[in-house]
Amino acid sequence: MSYFKNINKVTFEGPNSTNPFAFKYYNPEEMIDGKRMEEFMRFSIAYWHTFVADGGDPFGEGTMIRPWDKYIGMDLAKARVEAAFELFEKLNVPFFCFHDVDIAPEGNNLKETYENLDAIVAMIKEYMKTSKTKLLWNTANMFSHSRWLHGAATSPNADVYAYAAAKVKKGLEIGKELGAENYVFWGGREGYETLLNTNMKLELDNLGRFYHMAKDYAKEIGSDAQFLIEPKPKEPTKHQYDFDVATGLTFLQSYDLADCFKFNIEANHATLAGHTFEHELHVARINGMLGSVDANQGDTLLGWDTDEFPTDLYSTTLAMYEILKNEGFGTGGLNFDAKVRRGSFDPEDLFHAHIAGMDAFAIGTKVAQRLIEDKVLDNFVDERYNSFKEGIGLEVVEGRANFHELEKYALQLGEIENKSGRQEKLKGIINKYLLEAYL
Amino acid sequence: MSYFKNINKVTFEGPNSTNPFAFKYYNPEEMIDGKRMEEFMRFSIAYWHTFVADGGDPFGEGTMIRPWDKYIGMDLAKARVEAAFELFEKLNVPFFCFHDVDIAPEGNNLKETYENLDAIVAMIKEYMKTSKTKLLWNTANMFSHSRWLHGAATSPNADVYAYAAAKVKKGLEIGKELGAENYVFWGGREGYETLLNTNMKLELDNLGRFYHMAKDYAKEIGSDAQFLIEPKPKEPTKHQYDFDVATGLTFLQSYDLADCFKFNIEANHATLAGHTFEHELHVARINGMLGSVDANQGDTLLGWDTDEFPTDLYSTTLAMYEILKNEGFGTGGLNFDAKVRRGSFDPEDLFHAHIAGMDAFAIGTKVAQRLIEDKVLDNFVDERYNSFKEGIGLEVVEGRANFHELEKYALQLGEIENKSGRQEKLKGIINKYLLEAYL
Amino acid sequence: MSYFKNINKVTFEGPNSTNPFAFKYYNPEEMIDGKRMEEFMRFSIAYWHTFVADGGDPFGEGTMIRPWDKYIGMDLAKARVEAAFELFEKLNVPFFCFHDVDIAPEGNNLKETYENLDAIVAMIKEYMKTSKTKLLWNTANMFSHSRWLHGAATSPNADVYAYAAAKVKKGLEIGKELGAENYVFWGGREGYETLLNTNMKLELDNLGRFYHMAKDYAKEIGSDAQFLIEPKPKEPTKHQYDFDVATGLTFLQSYDLADCFKFNIEANHATLAGHTFEHELHVARINGMLGSVDANQGDTLLGWDTDEFPTDLYSTTLAMYEILKNEGFGTGGLNFDAKVRRGSFDPEDLFHAHIAGMDAFAIGTKVAQRLIEDKVLDNFVDERYNSFKEGIGLEVVEGRANFHELEKYALQLGEIENKSGRQEKLKGIINKYLLEAYL
Amino acid sequence: MSYFKNINKVTFEGPNSTNPFAFKYYNPEEMIDGKRMEEFMRFSIAYWHTFVADGGDPFGEGTMIRPWDKYIGMDLAKARVEAAFELFEKLNVPFFCFHDVDIAPEGNNLKETYENLDAIVAMIKEYMKTSKTKLLWNTANMFSHSRWLHGAATSPNADVYAYAAAKVKKGLEIGKELGAENYVFWGGREGYETLLNTNMKLELDNLGRFYHMAKDYAKEIGSDAQFLIEPKPKEPTKHQYDFDVATGLTFLQSYDLADCFKFNIEANHATLAGHTFEHELHVARINGMLGSVDANQGDTLLGWDTDEFPTDLYSTTLAMYEILKNEGFGTGGLNFDAKVRRGSFDPEDLFHAHIAGMDAFAIGTKVAQRLIEDKVLDNFVDERYNSFKEGIGLEVVEGRANFHELEKYALQLGEIENKSGRQEKLKGIINKYLLEAYL
Ligand SMILES: [Co+2]
Ligand SMILES: [Co+2]
Ligand SMILES: [Co+2]
Ligand SMILES: [Co+2]
Ligand SMILES: [Co+2]
Ligand SMILES: [Co+2]
Ligand SMILES: [Co+2]
Ligand SMILES: [Co+2]
Repeated sequence: MSYFKNINKVTFEGPNSTNPFAFKYYNPEEMIDGKRMEEFMRFSIAYWHTFVADGGDPFGEGTMIRPWDKYIGMDLAKARVEAAFELFEKLNVPFFCFHDVDIAPEGNNLKETYENLDAIVAMIKEYMKTSKTKLLWNTANMFSHSRWLHGAATSPNADVYAYAAAKVKKGLEIGKELGAENYVFWGGREGYETLLNTNMKLELDNLGRFYHMAKDYAKEIGSDAQFLIEPKPKEPTKHQYDFDVATGLTFLQSYDLADCFKFNIEANHATLAGHTFEHELHVARINGMLGSVDANQGDTLLGWDTDEFPTDLYSTTLAMYEILKNEGFGTGGLNFDAKVRRGSFDPEDLFHAHIAGMDAFAIGTKVAQRLIEDKVLDNFVDERYNSFKEGIGLEVVEGRANFHELEKYALQLGEIENKSGRQEKLKGIINKYLLEAYL
Repeated sequence: MSYFKNINKVTFEGPNSTNPFAFKYYNPEEMIDGKRMEEFMRFSIAYWHTFVADGGDPFGEGTMIRPWDKYIGMDLAKARVEAAFELFEKLNVPFFCFHDVDIAPEGNNLKETYENLDAIVAMIKEYMKTSKTKLLWNTANMFSHSRWLHGAATSPNADVYAYAAAKVKKGLEIGKELGAENYVFWGGREGYETLLNTNMKLELDNLGRFYHMAKDYAKEIGSDAQFLIEPKPKEPTKHQYDFDVATGLTFLQSYDLADCFKFNIEANHATLAGHTFEHELHVARINGMLGSVDANQGDTLLGWDTDEFPTDLYSTTLAMYEILKNEGFGTGGLNFDAKVRRGSFDPEDLFHAHIAGMDAFAIGTKVAQRLIEDKVLDNFVDERYNSFKEGIGLEVVEGRANFHELEKYALQLGEIENKSGRQEKLKGIINKYLLEAYL
Repeated sequence: MSYFKNINKVTFEGPNSTNPFAFKYYNPEEMIDGKRMEEFMRFSIAYWHTFVADGGDPFGEGTMIRPWDKYIGMDLAKARVEAAFELFEKLNVPFFCFHDVDIAPEGNNLKETYENLDAIVAMIKEYMKTSKTKLLWNTANMFSHSRWLHGAATSPNADVYAYAAAKVKKGLEIGKELGAENYVFWGGREGYETLLNTNMKLELDNLGRFYHMAKDYAKEIGSDAQFLIEPKPKEPTKHQYDFDVATGLTFLQSYDLADCFKFNIEANHATLAGHTFEHELHVARINGMLGSVDANQGDTLLGWDTDEFPTDLYSTTLAMYEILKNEGFGTGGLNFDAKVRRGSFDPEDLFHAHIAGMDAFAIGTKVAQRLIEDKVLDNFVDERYNSFKEGIGLEVVEGRANFHELEKYALQLGEIENKSGRQEKLKGIINKYLLEAYL
Repeated sequence: MSYFKNINKVTFEGPNSTNPFAFKYYNPEEMIDGKRMEEFMRFSIAYWHTFVADGGDPFGEGTMIRPWDKYIGMDLAKARVEAAFELFEKLNVPFFCFHDVDIAPEGNNLKETYENLDAIVAMIKEYMKTSKTKLLWNTANMFSHSRWLHGAATSPNADVYAYAAAKVKKGLEIGKELGAENYVFWGGREGYETLLNTNMKLELDNLGRFYHMAKDYAKEIGSDAQFLIEPKPKEPTKHQYDFDVATGLTFLQSYDLADCFKFNIEANHATLAGHTFEHELHVARINGMLGSVDANQGDTLLGWDTDEFPTDLYSTTLAMYEILKNEGFGTGGLNFDAKVRRGSFDPEDLFHAHIAGMDAFAIGTKVAQRLIEDKVLDNFVDERYNSFKEGIGLEVVEGRANFHELEKYALQLGEIENKSGRQEKLKGIINKYLLEAYL
């Protein structure tokens, strides 16, 4: 059966198209950095927001009209798989992502949960044989069930910790079975509500041990999925341990885990932490830790994770600038960890939203690529730091300077001349490149 | 001459005193953790806010009435030293802190600046012979002069970098000369205004090299001052590299500097970064990096660094809880990096403000000490994590568990029972301890 | 049957009590402003948080263990009434509040919903005959059901508008039936998600018409419940029309409704709007619009409505200062619009939380009362503005001045002398009063 | 003499120009809404940021290199006038704005200040005879001098109040002399630092009286300048009385001043208050109070007023959408209350910044105009609310409905059907219009 009967496969029709169900900017066949754009962008659909979420919020019930909602239990899980692969095909996306509980309901005990998962995983595997859509990453949901109320791998309860280990073990197996290219850890409740009742040191130590066990198990089963930590500063937890990329990095360094993890960076999590999206991407990139992206956008006038579909072209441009500088995603991709607004409850809104997001990233990629080709920023930056290419600056960079020598140099200096940073001019140039992207 | 003629030495008079110029709670002679409270608290006055700042803000000129303002240049610098030691004595504080430019004006060139500094340092040294007040830390101001507009040790200009090196070299020498117990690095402009014009990787590498040179030079001159980084997320810079303790720590780890630095943690910087003051103290403590404290408070409804005198007893209690758990400050102390409000412009407001802050920390210490003595939180936390003291939990903690075993354990579990976190009860208890502190 | 079997009636035992189920500070019999504290404080329990909410959040299911959860439908509704009156009695609270959907489930249509409500209202009325607990206010929930997704009285859908009218009509009738002293309007979804699809002018006009109809109907049925608007700036809606007290007031003024409304002010809503709790109370008070209080506290480092139980004594003190200056609540009260944390899931946590909140407000009241008795702030403020009691200042205040005269006066002025605002001293005094409250 | 020797008059060269000193999008001659774009946009240069500000911030001294900085006192004031009219001509802007202290230094007393002002006003008047640049508005700076530390028209000091009256009186006279089209009130220090020392009611009453006196005096001298209030929520004051448009409006309503004021809305002030720029413009517009615009942009990840030059095309588009719906500015205009970054210290950065801002608003205007011409949003909104054009909805709108009738209608309703709000689709359309603006 078809769940989106009235909507055909979405294709590229170009900027002049007035068809709301067409890509106007995203052309999978266009070349970007020597690859077809489709291969380069690696768009992914998030199972949870698109096939599971109902539009409920803390003040109200679900609103989403979903053609599969007449089913329950395992029938619902199966219907979602059918709907998912129909949407993957109609939106022409090469990847998808899921948490375990997105694809199959929990059973009455862990064993039943495993059985439910196995049944759906087998069904998905069958679908994947004839679909071009692959699994970007999977993960274990360790925040929705009430057992996780005080955390999972940082729970004060050893039973919960063991349960979490079982979930991740199963997740790694599922990922291997379905050929997932990454495995994601998002610690929704790995953090604390109040320091008054918390042993942070023990919780972090336990988390370190957990990741080592996960690493050992992945090696044991021959999984080569890249491990990814997804930082978020808060929500649901008052304070999450993986606050941002820098905090995640110091954790990984402290527990000798930096070599086997990268980061999955979400735009809205970046802004909740007080950073721009591009800042987080940049910090990860220069540390060799940029793994994948949860593509969405927040509302900086609101204090919670709104997970909006990404349409801000400044954000997509500056994000893709980092990705291009990173020479692409590697095993990562652009996963739409984004939800249609509660008031956008029609199935067709899923199309409008993904089209808007994919077009926005295609535009951003085009603008970023031209900025790089023309060396607009590179030349400016290169020139700005050229005092470190010779003389005393070069000595510093090459590690040959010391305080004696630098002081001696400073003492003979006259008034120091700096150069303007030209922020306003650069911003005007970005606007020009944006408007010229599709001339 | 006297600068605070009408105000006598401030002494402890107890809670019943109605003398506004008396300590009601801070009793230097009271014992805390086996030490006289004075020795334990290690209060320090910040030279910049108290003797230099004029109350100017981005929208208006200075307002402070200061008896030394009739002087200029080196005469002003000398008058401030006289006023400072009068205030130290009248407030009975054991420590003070300064930036180089606080104590002596810059000259027409670096050599003259050195000469100005030397003259004042000699004068201060003379005063210190007869004063009990010691130097908690000193630092170099590398943010106020226009030459630092793009940073100091992260400037794109090698001349600026060299100048910064000379300033820190001199700072280390001054610290040694005056017996400073610590040396602080606050990177006010070490960060970026926009990524569009920034080479973050080079800037951070240069900063790492700078700290290594500082370390080498300190060793060379036999300085044993503890190096401290003071994190702040933003302001004046759009984004500072030392965003918070975790970010500072990953920088130190990445550049092999973690063994020779600790953190100087400021309350208002913590909240600007999205953390509580006690969170930053806690993170530093469990990493063995809690060095010193810039005691103030912010206004979480305002988005800039207000540097208010600390009067919130919850904040002082939870901060002192961390300090007591840390077994005190070591070489650090409680430095009032706090300024009287622009509207509190009388010299006597300096007394009111420091008295309010010292009393607030004395109360906080008393409350925290009783919470620790009674093991109010310790027992609760201990009991909360007791599943990690035996069985599967103990195996995890001792590093003997793996995913196979944990899964096996999880599969046989029935419904998991968690225990309430009791946040509301604990908060009620904190209030009770607060009200009983001086019964 | 009893729902809280192991907990007896909570009574005042004084500060020395170590019984966790006793009031240590709140003594209903103590006199405050000529009234018994119980009469003065007018504490109220919020039905929704305490008897209905399950601890679910955007990332997880409910966690609360509630003895009535074995029931469903109308049986559940009835069990909650039984539990509620047991809790009212055990906590000795004089008031409660509810939304229509809190007390009775919606039926398959409006008529059935009415019938369900009627049955429960009759049951509550019966209980109230023998209980001392009265209804502080009721309201209609017009935000949880999916029909309200675009608003209620500001919906773009006239059917929804009519439905909202029916709900409020019924609410007014229920309030009259149960003797409610107020009727509250909280416009959870009265606002917009994006201006791109919104006719704000029409929505506000419709809201104005709605309130006039409500006013007419209340008059028609002889209801004398005070109408209250509860401002909130955002959440669930991106931008709510009743942003804060000032915004609510301009709406009421513009639509000629100011004479029949007051405000129900919630602490957490105040901080979300960028104000302190006491600011909102103060603005309402000086406009004669302070109606009632939703007593809770937020976390200013989090950007959403956390609705925590109020334990911050600064907040309760400054709030009660406004209430005392207002000569009490009038028909309003202190309603605990507060929820136990998701991790505080035991029934007994409901007791800990309410006790902590009631004690915190009792302490705040005591501190505020002493500040007023001693005229600590009044005298300072009075003195600060005394230039407006004579001469040119008096002319201004009495409306006899003009720009000519003021200019003439200004031209002959020498340097103007201002007086210090003494913020730090005043804050120190507040701490002293706090610590002395129970000496 | 020339202050910007190396830069010629900036002209429109079109999108293909690579000349950094040319407009690429702003074409003064292009027609918009039946007017030349120059007449429609009414761009204005802010004297304070462009000719006076030195780039100082709370942590550092000025950085700006300005050719007129070799002068002091009245010579400096005169040089700035010369430089200003040169820049006005070279940037081809039709308007400018100033505070009194921007154009002339304060003297030793008010009389001398008047004399200084008179001399410069005469000079400006002379320049205006041959310049096409007119005065959009002037105002009195009542926040920079230390006398205003506790406010001006809300000061607790009647002398300060009188001084403020004299300043505004003079400001009205200057405005009349120079043909200013508006007079602006920005209450930088009209607010409070802490409620503990504040009589808000008296302060607001005094402010109301002040505005009435201003109104009377303007009438007396025959000034027809439109009075404008510029809301800002905080900074420098902890809490400003004119928090946002709604708060300003309730003040004006309460003091019977709404008929003689409109609002001057600044983008960065809007976001500091928790609103979007377009929200504030919209609220003002539907209340008939949209007077003028301070065109800039903030950084929503920073908590202070950054006053950046406006380059965000979403913001300029949505702002101009409101202006076009308002049928233009009336007597208002687009005043660049924006400052070049501290690191953009070259005189030429003033050109880059204004060009970037003017181009950004030209683009925004084009996009907004096309959205309006094509009725993209209008049709959607119109259709969305069509249930209020007939039947029960029309009765509501026409004021013929009541709760009885609405309830009767609601009782016969089946399940209510809502329509999707289509936010994502609309955002995609905005992007398409943006990219097509200059095709
Ligand atoms: Co995500
Ligand atoms: Co998110
Ligand atoms: Co500090
Ligand atoms: Co600070
Ligand atoms: Co409420
Ligand atoms: Co709330
Ligand atoms: Co402005
Ligand atoms: Co501004």
